[in-house]
Amino acid sequence: MKYPLHLIKLIETLKKLPGVGTKSAERFAFHMLDWQPQQLREMSTIIADMPSQLCCCPTCGCLEDNGSCPFCIPERLQHQKLCIIACAKEAFAIEATGEFHGCFHVLGTLLSPMSGKGADMIDMDKLFRRIKSNNVTEVVIALDSTLEGDATALYLKSALTHAGVTISRLAFGIPMGSSLEYVDGGTLAKAFSGRSPY
Amino acid sequence: MKYPLHLIKLIETLKKLPGVGTKSAERFAFHMLDWQPQQLREMSTIIADMPSQLCCCPTCGCLEDNGSCPFCIPERLQHQKLCIIACAKEAFAIEATGEFHGCFHVLGTLLSPMSGKGADMIDMDKLFRRIKSNNVTEVVIALDSTLEGDATALYLKSALTHAGVTISRLAFGIPMGSSLEYVDGGTLAKAFSGRSPY
Repeated sequence: MKYPLHLIKLIETLKKLPGVGTKSAERFAFHMLDWQPQQLREMSTIIADMPSQLCCCPTCGCLEDNGSCPFCIPERLQHQKLCIIACAKEAFAIEATGEFHGCFHVLGTLLSPMSGKGADMIDMDKLFRRIKSNNVTEVVIALDSTLEGDATALYLKSALTHAGVTISRLAFGIPMGSSLEYVDGGTLAKAFSGRSPY
Repeated sequence: MKYPLHLIKLIETLKKLPGVGTKSAERFAFHMLDWQPQQLREMSTIIADMPSQLCCCPTCGCLEDNGSCPFCIPERLQHQKLCIIACAKEAFAIEATGEFHGCFHVLGTLLSPMSGKGADMIDMDKLFRRIKSNNVTEVVIALDSTLEGDATALYLKSALTHAGVTISRLAFGIPMGSSLEYVDGGTLAKAFSGRSPY
């Protein structure tokens, strides 16, 4: 016996969330059946209002708050540093570290030829324009340590060679609080080659 | 730096889903930021339409399909068997086994004094009325093998003693395809005491 049509629709739409398969979507859907209509209306309205309420800054690609970008402000521009990130979420994580006070530049995607994401997906002209107009002196590449992240970082490094800026990438090494015993070989090798005077 | 207010609202509403904590809700929310407005509208409408589109059968508590209950039909009533389940989802799982052809009775909750769910949460009058009106001869208790499930099963067993019906409960034992090595002691003990001629 099949689920009622509307329940199937709900499960299918919930499966679009990252990491949610059929089993989890079914669990979510049956849980939601017990919610009050008021709770359902609330969730529905929040989702429907997303396009109008959550806009990306046309300059840096980060999330605007109340119609203005909290990252594109004069105090941050004066640092002349630009941190390249893949998606808007990372700006909040980096901001929380308190280690970076410059501006961000959201790429929106990482290079991934297997998924049809080639170099044409990255708007290099926009990046060059920002580097020039903001008098950027250092570009920090803050991308994942994955195949896609490494490929994108290499591409950016070569594209920015003649841009007259210092290019840096986040350090690789042993995660804080972890035991050497559990660190994988690749990370250990990076930690060795990147060792610093102590 | 805090997330924009609407994003916080979205994360809070997503955290109401079972097993979804802050980290998962943030992951869902940022993923949804990349969705097309059309996809968001679709999800929003499906959720808002749930109270009108997904109703529970007033007789058995299972989900109705197109305004009628697929389980409360004469062909199933004639079996004179009633399977007591905790929530509507289980009816589909039991139906898929092809082992039961009678009717269902959704309790809606399990006894759990710790969460303030006492015997008054279970509508026994309704259960008695159904047993009488459907001429039920066997009641199958299909509840979880947990503290709450066991307590509810015991309560039902004692309440139905004089109802003139055979009472059975689902068998406990070794799950199909599992190795004895990995079966816990409680399950193994149940499997021993419930062993059958082979």
